[in-house]
Amino acid sequence: MSFELPPFLVEDAVRAALAEDLGRAGDVTTQATIPASASASADLAARETGVVAGLALARAAFAQMSADISFEAPLADGDRVAPGAIVARIEGPARAILSAERVALNYLGRLSGVASLTARYAERIAHTKARICDTRKTTPLLRAFEKYAVRCGGGANHRFGLDDAVLIKDNHIAVAGGVVPALRAARAFVGHLTKIEIEVDTLDQLREVLQEGADAVLLDNMSPEELRQAVTLIDGAMICEASGGVTLDTVAAIAETGVDLISVGALTHSAKVLDLGLDIAIA
Amino acid sequence: MSFELPPFLVEDAVRAALAEDLGRAGDVTTQATIPASASASADLAARETGVVAGLALARAAFAQMSADISFEAPLADGDRVAPGAIVARIEGPARAILSAERVALNYLGRLSGVASLTARYAERIAHTKARICDTRKTTPLLRAFEKYAVRCGGGANHRFGLDDAVLIKDNHIAVAGGVVPALRAARAFVGHLTKIEIEVDTLDQLREVLQEGADAVLLDNMSPEELRQAVTLIDGAMICEASGGVTLDTVAAIAETGVDLISVGALTHSAKVLDLGLDIAIA
Amino acid sequence: MSFELPPFLVEDAVRAALAEDLGRAGDVTTQATIPASASASADLAARETGVVAGLALARAAFAQMSADISFEAPLADGDRVAPGAIVARIEGPARAILSAERVALNYLGRLSGVASLTARYAERIAHTKARICDTRKTTPLLRAFEKYAVRCGGGANHRFGLDDAVLIKDNHIAVAGGVVPALRAARAFVGHLTKIEIEVDTLDQLREVLQEGADAVLLDNMSPEELRQAVTLIDGAMICEASGGVTLDTVAAIAETGVDLISVGALTHSAKVLDLGLDIAIA
Amino acid sequence: MSFELPPFLVEDAVRAALAEDLGRAGDVTTQATIPASASASADLAARETGVVAGLALARAAFAQMSADISFEAPLADGDRVAPGAIVARIEGPARAILSAERVALNYLGRLSGVASLTARYAERIAHTKARICDTRKTTPLLRAFEKYAVRCGGGANHRFGLDDAVLIKDNHIAVAGGVVPALRAARAFVGHLTKIEIEVDTLDQLREVLQEGADAVLLDNMSPEELRQAVTLIDGAMICEASGGVTLDTVAAIAETGVDLISVGALTHSAKVLDLGLDIAIA
Amino acid sequence: MSFELPPFLVEDAVRAALAEDLGRAGDVTTQATIPASASASADLAARETGVVAGLALARAAFAQMSADISFEAPLADGDRVAPGAIVARIEGPARAILSAERVALNYLGRLSGVASLTARYAERIAHTKARICDTRKTTPLLRAFEKYAVRCGGGANHRFGLDDAVLIKDNHIAVAGGVVPALRAARAFVGHLTKIEIEVDTLDQLREVLQEGADAVLLDNMSPEELRQAVTLIDGAMICEASGGVTLDTVAAIAETGVDLISVGALTHSAKVLDLGLDIAIA
Amino acid sequence: MSFELPPFLVEDAVRAALAEDLGRAGDVTTQATIPASASASADLAARETGVVAGLALARAAFAQMSADISFEAPLADGDRVAPGAIVARIEGPARAILSAERVALNYLGRLSGVASLTARYAERIAHTKARICDTRKTTPLLRAFEKYAVRCGGGANHRFGLDDAVLIKDNHIAVAGGVVPALRAARAFVGHLTKIEIEVDTLDQLREVLQEGADAVLLDNMSPEELRQAVTLIDGAMICEASGGVTLDTVAAIAETGVDLISVGALTHSAKVLDLGLDIAIA
Repeated sequence: MSFELPPFLVEDAVRAALAEDLGRAGDVTTQATIPASASASADLAARETGVVAGLALARAAFAQMSADISFEAPLADGDRVAPGAIVARIEGPARAILSAERVALNYLGRLSGVASLTARYAERIAHTKARICDTRKTTPLLRAFEKYAVRCGGGANHRFGLDDAVLIKDNHIAVAGGVVPALRAARAFVGHLTKIEIEVDTLDQLREVLQEGADAVLLDNMSPEELRQAVTLIDGAMICEASGGVTLDTVAAIAETGVDLISVGALTHSAKVLDLGLDIAIA
Repeated sequence: MSFELPPFLVEDAVRAALAEDLGRAGDVTTQATIPASASASADLAARETGVVAGLALARAAFAQMSADISFEAPLADGDRVAPGAIVARIEGPARAILSAERVALNYLGRLSGVASLTARYAERIAHTKARICDTRKTTPLLRAFEKYAVRCGGGANHRFGLDDAVLIKDNHIAVAGGVVPALRAARAFVGHLTKIEIEVDTLDQLREVLQEGADAVLLDNMSPEELRQAVTLIDGAMICEASGGVTLDTVAAIAETGVDLISVGALTHSAKVLDLGLDIAIA
Repeated sequence: MSFELPPFLVEDAVRAALAEDLGRAGDVTTQATIPASASASADLAARETGVVAGLALARAAFAQMSADISFEAPLADGDRVAPGAIVARIEGPARAILSAERVALNYLGRLSGVASLTARYAERIAHTKARICDTRKTTPLLRAFEKYAVRCGGGANHRFGLDDAVLIKDNHIAVAGGVVPALRAARAFVGHLTKIEIEVDTLDQLREVLQEGADAVLLDNMSPEELRQAVTLIDGAMICEASGGVTLDTVAAIAETGVDLISVGALTHSAKVLDLGLDIAIA
Repeated sequence: MSFELPPFLVEDAVRAALAEDLGRAGDVTTQATIPASASASADLAARETGVVAGLALARAAFAQMSADISFEAPLADGDRVAPGAIVARIEGPARAILSAERVALNYLGRLSGVASLTARYAERIAHTKARICDTRKTTPLLRAFEKYAVRCGGGANHRFGLDDAVLIKDNHIAVAGGVVPALRAARAFVGHLTKIEIEVDTLDQLREVLQEGADAVLLDNMSPEELRQAVTLIDGAMICEASGGVTLDTVAAIAETGVDLISVGALTHSAKVLDLGLDIAIA
Repeated sequence: MSFELPPFLVEDAVRAALAEDLGRAGDVTTQATIPASASASADLAARETGVVAGLALARAAFAQMSADISFEAPLADGDRVAPGAIVARIEGPARAILSAERVALNYLGRLSGVASLTARYAERIAHTKARICDTRKTTPLLRAFEKYAVRCGGGANHRFGLDDAVLIKDNHIAVAGGVVPALRAARAFVGHLTKIEIEVDTLDQLREVLQEGADAVLLDNMSPEELRQAVTLIDGAMICEASGGVTLDTVAAIAETGVDLISVGALTHSAKVLDLGLDIAIA
Repeated sequence: MSFELPPFLVEDAVRAALAEDLGRAGDVTTQATIPASASASADLAARETGVVAGLALARAAFAQMSADISFEAPLADGDRVAPGAIVARIEGPARAILSAERVALNYLGRLSGVASLTARYAERIAHTKARICDTRKTTPLLRAFEKYAVRCGGGANHRFGLDDAVLIKDNHIAVAGGVVPALRAARAFVGHLTKIEIEVDTLDQLREVLQEGADAVLLDNMSPEELRQAVTLIDGAMICEASGGVTLDTVAAIAETGVDLISVGALTHSAKVLDLGLDIAIA
């Protein structure tokens, strides 16, 4: 599968990040020391192993600084890199390359970091049918990008916001008066293309959900043993998601219980950037 | 010292993050299951040890969802928390509290994560005169917030963008024709309130800088031994910053060389969120 | 069920509409002829039968022109009105009431028009289990409001955009190489909370869909007789939506075939405004 | 006369409408089922009789999705179409064409609907010197486009907002203390390039206006017989506009009284979309 | 006549100006040296003679920095001030007062400068029936404010933009094929509430205009003697505006020719700020 | 030294100014009288002596109105012009040239006015080592442009906002408890790349500053004799800026005292536009 960041999301996000970095006077160091006529070429290279995501943002950062920059990427989002791998070659005005470098790397490093962490989780469960998925614990204002990076890393996306699917949690159940009235209220409220998932803490709650029906169930903080029992109870009647206490060390055991999805907040809230660098040669 | 996030930055950032999460139809789960008249109270509590930063963002997230929400914070930005510490108590319409929860936690957890990591670095060098400082390797669109969080954690801020100080790096030196012409070009270009820092890789370069003069020097990727020699050479004539290869394990040795500042990209590019939770009781 | 427009959508939309109407110099007629000190009271009244939707937009239009305006609405969104019914009473500075009048009525009239037309369709099929639903044929920039108005009128919402559900149409099927590969490609692409609907023109296509499985099927431009056969084939296995050629005259016959949903583009693309007026008395 | 939508209005409006439709993840159906490399051609064709308006918006919708799309329009805004008439031929990447289709049609259908309804009114009074004109009862945020569509349909534009002309209504007259003080207050307030129109309900009021002078008079809700008397009284001294109770059935009789303009809110508040479709062939 | 800046224009303009001044870190000097708890009072006083305009902008600058600031203005826009006159008294948090000071003074000083220069021109022609009016030679992005300031200073407003009135100049006449076809084309194009003015350089052109009719005529760069002849020719048939070469020294002679309006670009393109200061006492 | 306006600042500023001028209907005069097919060429010429600044804004104004316009500028920002000098030659669609003219001239005239006034000050002190610098008394929303124009005119820039340098004034000193505590508070608060300047009114205060140390000192409203003594005291230990009461007549005497910088609010708050005109020939 090939990945492409929806272009309509890219331009404004890059413009805002450049504005944040360039401030009121632009790159004063470069203006002072590099002539407007100088050209440069640069290799954007990986400095550690991982998965690339966000090339369109890096490309746009350079393009917005100058219409005369070429950005050739031998790799694509979703590709794995080893240390030293060339991700892209950039050529054009030296000033533009130097001034766009940090914004390009900040976006690309962050999204590649999310993709790379996702890939590490995905590898651990490759022998199962389970898939890793993200949460809404994303960086404010970067959610669409981070969820895209999760897909590049081999993960699946949970809902994008509070509006595109129902996820009934303990507080909703408590106020609605139980699992059944909560599910019925949700079904009455939303359109036919909105799925309904419900969080359960116990197998008893799960049995209620199974009787009433739902599109998916989130098994919260259950032990592998409980998860296994839950999977048996569900028996394919609903999508079944495990969450809570998932780490690279525990994920395989959870996946082996037979759940469909394992959601991991850390994919987006605690990923480190992927180390990438720009090696610039100014003509 | 007390910390306060510049209020003019808060409102729009929270509005944008709520829009990102609420999408086109808002929190459909809550609308379906929680009556408009329900009230709730909630404790925002720490679940691990760290330093809090970003309370104004959390407060604004709840306030923007309802004018009827109270948000009382016994702690302030910059305060340390242990697991279980109550960071804030929130009361008001249940729907508003549930719908704002994730945006509030996403901002607060992320900034507190940056502050907490900064504090861990700062502790390691508390026996020296050195201070930890940040870089421009920040999350796109969140730089002002992350740099504020670094201050809350006891760190210092490097420049906020490409425009508010000069930082001459290897490429600038190469094109300008050496350390001296680069420094002179910078001095001729900027106003009298813009400081000039220059990066050097060797003690020879450093000697050139010392002769020509600069406000600060960045000693890049030097060993502790080289740093020590550099500090001796500089002898207080310039602010002296070390960077490159800094980890929690190496930072003390670097600080003990006598440098003034140690810049750490990881403070902002690789901090994990601080684990915080909202315990909600709906009346 | 009570309806409430997501507040976060209201303020900016009203601000933009007031800016559109007030232009560069504001309401010059009112500034010239009405003293700043004059007060007024006004009855916002229905002049024809229908369903009200959008009161929050009207309220915000007046509130944004002056903090001193009171807006008391004895009715709520979703309520039916007869000619002469008072929808709201407004009191405050005369200038603000006069200057906000048109924006308030333009929003309220338009959304009430959508709600009223939806209600007329809904009445025609009240004896069946079918529900009326909207489409993406909405007024550009007003989609969330118009879909809200459809709910106020007793209708259901189809997807809000291209991203919150899959709807596979003839072109997608053709390129993907048939119903089955199209459904499989969609299932592989989207997350577990995204539903998949597919459009079919013939009962043969429908049979393929039934074998492969989908969340919903759109029966496009079928006669009541075909629809009836389709419903029998589907037998509750999927949500079943009829579309094409639906008018107030034909909708009952379509509903009586047993379909779950009937989508009607006219709800949003061809509704007339509900006739509402503001009777102002200036003190 | 040829019509062209002011280009500076088009780009942002289309960008906002695409953002509304594409949401956070873009056209997931198309991404899942159509390869990035697929090309398509499409005929944008009329399905009923009417007048086209808004081609620049449709063109921009496709262009913003891909720089590689060509959009050739044999017709221009203001042209009449019969069912089957080709309005435009579009060629380029299949994904972009499919994803932009709805936004293009929503704008074009709506504006063409306004133009077509205007043209129907205009035809009814073509044997008189009167012209149809619009009001401020427009769709919020689309006023400039809808007023442009009115011109394409052969109508004239009333003021664009509260600021570009004075229109004194009954409330203004009442507070100002009569027709004469209201007109004088207006004249004293506005610049020399702002016209002043005043609404009258009776011939007595009209006589007052004639004595004091104004640029235009709005004869509100008068019978044809009263309008005829009003026209005789005015005798060319002012532009004379009739409004109230205008329908396709009554407009001819009103126009035959000799008035200059007949304003019709329905042109913009109750026009149906013109039925247009996109017939797509994917290579 | 009392003046009030349209409030809907004020908030965003002040927010943008504060953002421009506060940058990414806010007022660092004040944060460092003034405790958050300090209160202050301040007198905003005139330091030279002039006319005040823009108080609402100054008020908003302080209000946006803190909800706890009071701003009492004994004077109103349009009032004359002598050196030492107190324009407003401000009380509240010291930090907010210090941080808002420059934005408040920049707006107020600039608009008061425009009002004051306008008043000086108006005084010179107070013995005639002529009025001073502005042009479109305004500061980009501040046009509505500067035109408001012109009114405060006793001047009249020319058109606000290219769209709210027709002004036919030499190039338009040349391409249209003369005065008469240009006027006819304009009349056919615009609505009945858009006035038409035409620029003429010679009395012969003026005669053509008089025959064809227009709402106003701009007599460009004519000598007082020519203006006098033009006024005689026009004899009240049109509004008559003089422009070109108008200074404080020449304006009286021009006004005495009997023209209705004298437009002066310098009112907005070359006014000096009115000298105002803030005398702050911190408790 | 060559000057170039940071491109990222130009596009949005020009778009906003065009929107301000074009309003809701665009240039109605030009639409009515100039055929869409007409071409024109135009010379942008100086009508008085001065220094050009802002060519990129003028270029963008034309470019945004039409992609088919060429704009060739034989001069560059910072160049001196005499009356009649051709600043740029523009060719392309006549409508676009006419409609963009005013925005282009408003920006270019204003910035060139600032540059020209700066140059006049700079000339007066060319025999000294002092430089003219600007203040924060700029036009709201145009600060970055105006500070750029100051550089083009040969001046230097003071800080761009409240955040990029510390400037301690009398109120800060009073609350902090004197010069020394104020300087120490500032030093503790800001990062190592933020400079600290302090304002002093007396030589005694200056002595305190010299003992404590600062990056720069602002000598406020001192006589030339006092300035001379201050310069002697400072003896190169800090940058030394004079301000207050600076005019073209007094500036030389101030510069001759040996200060480094002389700040002049009038550069931006009271500059007249440079008189520029567009001579258009329509084919």
